[in-house]
Amino acid sequence: MLLRAAHGLPVARTPVWFMRQAGRSLPEYRALREGTTMLAACFTPDLVVEITDQPVRRHGVDAAIFFSDIVVPLRALGVDLDIVPGVGPVVGEPIRDSSGLAQLRDLTDADVAPVLEAVRVLTGPTGPLGGTPLIGFAGAPFTLASYLIEGGPSRDHARTKALMYSEPAVWNDLADRLARIAGAFLRMQVLAGASAVQLFDSWAGALPAADYEALVLPHVRTALSAIDDLSEAHGVPRTLFGVGTGELLKTMSGAASEVMGVDFRVPLDVAATRVRPGAALQGNLDPAVVRADPAAVRARVDDVLTAADRSGRGHIFNLGHGVLPDTDPDVLTRIVEQVHAHGPVPAANANPRVPPTR
Amino acid sequence: MLLRAAHGLPVARTPVWFMRQAGRSLPEYRALREGTTMLAACFTPDLVVEITDQPVRRHGVDAAIFFSDIVVPLRALGVDLDIVPGVGPVVGEPIRDSSGLAQLRDLTDADVAPVLEAVRVLTGPTGPLGGTPLIGFAGAPFTLASYLIEGGPSRDHARTKALMYSEPAVWNDLADRLARIAGAFLRMQVLAGASAVQLFDSWAGALPAADYEALVLPHVRTALSAIDDLSEAHGVPRTLFGVGTGELLKTMSGAASEVMGVDFRVPLDVAATRVRPGAALQGNLDPAVVRADPAAVRARVDDVLTAADRSGRGHIFNLGHGVLPDTDPDVLTRIVEQVHAHGPVPAANANPRVPPTR
Repeated sequence: MLLRAAHGLPVARTPVWFMRQAGRSLPEYRALREGTTMLAACFTPDLVVEITDQPVRRHGVDAAIFFSDIVVPLRALGVDLDIVPGVGPVVGEPIRDSSGLAQLRDLTDADVAPVLEAVRVLTGPTGPLGGTPLIGFAGAPFTLASYLIEGGPSRDHARTKALMYSEPAVWNDLADRLARIAGAFLRMQVLAGASAVQLFDSWAGALPAADYEALVLPHVRTALSAIDDLSEAHGVPRTLFGVGTGELLKTMSGAASEVMGVDFRVPLDVAATRVRPGAALQGNLDPAVVRADPAAVRARVDDVLTAADRSGRGHIFNLGHGVLPDTDPDVLTRIVEQVHAHGPVPAANANPRVPPTR
Repeated sequence: MLLRAAHGLPVARTPVWFMRQAGRSLPEYRALREGTTMLAACFTPDLVVEITDQPVRRHGVDAAIFFSDIVVPLRALGVDLDIVPGVGPVVGEPIRDSSGLAQLRDLTDADVAPVLEAVRVLTGPTGPLGGTPLIGFAGAPFTLASYLIEGGPSRDHARTKALMYSEPAVWNDLADRLARIAGAFLRMQVLAGASAVQLFDSWAGALPAADYEALVLPHVRTALSAIDDLSEAHGVPRTLFGVGTGELLKTMSGAASEVMGVDFRVPLDVAATRVRPGAALQGNLDPAVVRADPAAVRARVDDVLTAADRSGRGHIFNLGHGVLPDTDPDVLTRIVEQVHAHGPVPAANANPRVPPTR
């Protein structure tokens, strides 16, 4: 269902999954993670398999998102970083000039062997996911670069921008290395069994469109093009997602991903006027809405489904950003039920789309 | 110059000031603040006067922004809050239902007497500012409410949104009280001598436009309308500003402020297509750019000035958000010189406006 929607084909019901569905909102996740650091968990196949499968069993979502973190391939290359609870990725020696670039060599299968083993177990014929597609992912160059340059999460990305604008050659070298790492990591996950991929450019919304186009988009293209052949021959859809990207959707469309992730600030029918024809849309319920009362949640889910119908695009229901840690998981399960009850969706590109009969 | 530009009148040179120009980027500020908490400083007239004047003397900017904080009127009303260094405003007992509302009574002059004394000293005939206009300010209802509801700074504003969507009556009561407090505070500052005001809706960009219009805009109107008479009779311009508001500019224009603050993500000529005719624009150099090398800074300042020229609107040069704490103040001084060297700006090509009387 997810793959059909990603390609704008008619579906019996709208597919749904949630960014960060495998994580702290689930008590069974918190129990399993106890005593294990985030990065240690990401490199332990048994844990990755179980954590990835937990939300699929619980919510009945239409896809599993691989349990990992965007900094995992960097850690696999030996970059001195850790994921600090309550903070995020923290880098021991931030990269501020070309001297830090050598460590960002090309990623090999051997670097991420435990990760790929988990993908194989999950998607194998006797794996827990059964037919549920697994979405692999990677961090996009700008977002990864921001962590490496700032040394951790940043509100303003000031050092990153200063490097981009002051030393574009160093920037482009860094971003190209990160793009090749991200592309290789996506490709490995697909070859190991993932059916779809998502490139997270979480902080892209911090950039004006002109800068994104000149300094970021070429590297996003590099990353996504690593699976051009697999997307073409096997229909592996690629989703590009960032937060606060209303002003960027048109520019981001230049990366030609099959699916555009849309954050909650822009209704999907408005997003459709900016995203290149043919691309499906993923999103876009505000994760904060999940904490409102049941009637408000229902109404907002309906708003998203209605806007998706009007968009005339293939639609994968999701949040507009990751599940918030203190989300009540039962609310997520009810949202899955509501989305699934919305009824069949016809082929895309009947613009404007006739609301589905149900 | 600032007041003329705010009203779209021809100016000999583009006026410029910087949000948070009075603050941590200045060594003379850090020296003066040593040993004094932020809130204590805000209620000490001598300190407020000196800190407000410091960047005017140093940079030669065309306006002083009153040294204060958006939570000052709330503290003056007795709300249990503090400004924690490195964190921001932290509220002792967050407001989560109607029981916390009674403390948000109407603000009187007596509540903020030391603050108004500082305004009077600054703007008096023998005050340090001389003819430089003083901009008073207040926090907009959504942004203030978010601090009160979340208990401090928040990335996702989840509790705030849950309250807005689940209990709109409680939300509207809270927001109306905050709007009346903000409006009263703006009015007091103008009556004490401020020549212009700015309403900071810093977190507005977290909301989709439909929610902003239904649940926030009416309260922004309430706040700004508190000086309708002063704006009309004395040409006191009102600036409405938020971060990440590209999607909201058209909706925010419904508040009919004389000036719209634009963050750095949207070029000013693009912003002009969204902001109501007749309004001037303020902005919008990315504060992160100030940390790039001199050539990059120069080029980016020129980009802003060029986009402003193309916008056909009155223009007040500013950053697209506050000065970052570790900004080199000399770079800000050079930016002022560059903006002033840009040359005269003709009348805005928009609707005729009431000329200011001072």
